[in-house]
Amino acid sequence: VDPRIERLYRLAAGRAGAAVLLGGGLPSAALFPRARLQAAFLRALAQPAGALQYGWPEGHERLRAWIAARVAARGARVTADDVIVTNGAQQAIDLAVSTLGAAGALGDGGWRIGVDAETYPAALDLFRTRGALPVVGAAVRCRYVMPHVSNPRGLALDDAARAQLLASGAALIEDDAYAELNFSGPPGRPLAADAPDRVFHVGTFSKVLCPGLRVGWLIAPRDAREEALRRKRDLDLQASSLAQSILVEFLDADDFDARLARARAYYRRRAVRLARALRRRLPAWRFRMPDGGFSIWCETGEPGDDIALLEAAVAEGVTADPGRLFRADDASAPVALRLCFSSAPVAALDDGVARVARAWDTWRRARDRERVVERSML
Amino acid sequence: VDPRIERLYRLAAGRAGAAVLLGGGLPSAALFPRARLQAAFLRALAQPAGALQYGWPEGHERLRAWIAARVAARGARVTADDVIVTNGAQQAIDLAVSTLGAAGALGDGGWRIGVDAETYPAALDLFRTRGALPVVGAAVRCRYVMPHVSNPRGLALDDAARAQLLASGAALIEDDAYAELNFSGPPGRPLAADAPDRVFHVGTFSKVLCPGLRVGWLIAPRDAREEALRRKRDLDLQASSLAQSILVEFLDADDFDARLARARAYYRRRAVRLARALRRRLPAWRFRMPDGGFSIWCETGEPGDDIALLEAAVAEGVTADPGRLFRADDASAPVALRLCFSSAPVAALDDGVARVARAWDTWRRARDRERVVERSML
Repeated sequence: VDPRIERLYRLAAGRAGAAVLLGGGLPSAALFPRARLQAAFLRALAQPAGALQYGWPEGHERLRAWIAARVAARGARVTADDVIVTNGAQQAIDLAVSTLGAAGALGDGGWRIGVDAETYPAALDLFRTRGALPVVGAAVRCRYVMPHVSNPRGLALDDAARAQLLASGAALIEDDAYAELNFSGPPGRPLAADAPDRVFHVGTFSKVLCPGLRVGWLIAPRDAREEALRRKRDLDLQASSLAQSILVEFLDADDFDARLARARAYYRRRAVRLARALRRRLPAWRFRMPDGGFSIWCETGEPGDDIALLEAAVAEGVTADPGRLFRADDASAPVALRLCFSSAPVAALDDGVARVARAWDTWRRARDRERVVERSML
Repeated sequence: VDPRIERLYRLAAGRAGAAVLLGGGLPSAALFPRARLQAAFLRALAQPAGALQYGWPEGHERLRAWIAARVAARGARVTADDVIVTNGAQQAIDLAVSTLGAAGALGDGGWRIGVDAETYPAALDLFRTRGALPVVGAAVRCRYVMPHVSNPRGLALDDAARAQLLASGAALIEDDAYAELNFSGPPGRPLAADAPDRVFHVGTFSKVLCPGLRVGWLIAPRDAREEALRRKRDLDLQASSLAQSILVEFLDADDFDARLARARAYYRRRAVRLARALRRRLPAWRFRMPDGGFSIWCETGEPGDDIALLEAAVAEGVTADPGRLFRADDASAPVALRLCFSSAPVAALDDGVARVARAWDTWRRARDRERVVERSML
């Protein structure tokens, strides 16, 4: 992340209630099941030592069984033994890419990973740190994809694109972080069901339940499982026993499908509200209505510096995510923004977009003034 | 970890109450402050979104301030800004070694890290995974040390050894996991106080409070802090918000120094019990009484296969940690065992050692029979 962007995020977050946060991709705190998590915590603590003691690196057996059953219900041949519990999806992606890298599956001299034209920023950063170059549209031996709900676009792969992806023969890191939040209902077959020998399936409770538990998972191809588990142990021994024990107790007592159905309806309503505000206040911007997830990807079609745009937005009391974060080549132009409808109070969405529109005007005027100056200096 | 050792550990753990666990290095569940953690959890949940939402990669500000104040009280110039909250000490060690590696501080072609003749096994595994060769007694540009309470020996560095270490000019990864559990009282100056520009200071709540929270920390030299934080974010975005919020509330209401004093007395009593049993039942074994920590390092002085010895122990209903785990060269002989007094019921320590003694007899007879066979085949 560019330190200028980080600084602006922190500036806006420090203003607490005074800013409308349309950046960041946070789930809505209104959906966090506090009372049920509290009850689950009390039950977890009442068990013998487990919740507070060390556990095995692969994670809590009952939690792995729950995860495996859900993925298996979607058509994949997965058992609890195939699941490694991780610190969120991010660590699962790291395990996948480093296991692939160690196996030579990312190519010889210089690793490359295929990504969408816009994709999850922290995955791009991670790939670079691990020495893998994210590339768009090239022939690669490994691809990172979010087939059911992409980030930032919130779109699902259509059947043709999915078939093409599977036919490529590449190793696939399938990030299902938002998959359960496709507005049209539960996700279908994971890629891991169709190519179990080369799909690393990644999931998390962060978007559908709450991020604070920091629990995700990796389902690696059988051949890679031992190496992935060895790496998990080396990285940090294990995921939090406490968070896992809370989850096991929580899931035991919860109607998780009903919870997901409520979350889909909740986020869809917000997506509609944000889209309406965008059409009204920024009619020149282009976007596709998302199939699910937390955000709308807005393309302005204009040149310029998206960090300066974020700066103008923060000055107006609103945040948004600059498009460059989502691009493998870090390009600012054509300027785009990810706007999240997920966590701001729903009544604030319209006001938030009004602030973005004001920032957009300010930024455009400043940009055009600079151009005049530049031209006059030639 | 050798898969044979792993299999034996799991076998013994599966027998639950039937085996005496003298391996593993677990803290005593009797010391886990369940009621206070429960109260802290309820207070944490009552706060606005923080405990269940995403947080910053460096961790919770109040927790970092608490950690910094404790390390500063020991003489280091440390503020909250210097602290990165991690998933236990293990991740802090990983951040340290990978940050050093990226900076070229581990040497050119082939990284090497100096370690004690016996040291923390998961650090050895981690170094190897990161491409760094752990070496004993060689000139190196980086050393991994536990200056206040070592693992497995439980010994503190004396002043001369400490001075020599600091004079070496090497980068130091200072693992303080057990430091607060030196039986003689609070630890003195951290190495980070004397060489802040080249010490990566590592700590954790796992030994002194409970491992289930999975919270540790890294204090990196100022020059390396930004890179370490970038890596923390890439690895898994952040440590658990929930665990950090619980800790903040817990520490606010706890007399932590009194808690540590009780823990020191508790573990010292157990160390004495285990030592007495060892002298009585295995008088030929050599060990030094530990200064602190969870374990006694027992040297048999004999050749042989320590995994076979663990196998015999598990057959007798007791576990111990084979010496090879702690050695950079993975050597089995001279056979040694780490015996932990920390987590088994205190009344079971004597029985546990009796089982180890029986396993030792069985193993020696089997070893000597094999030798006779080998000799007769020559």
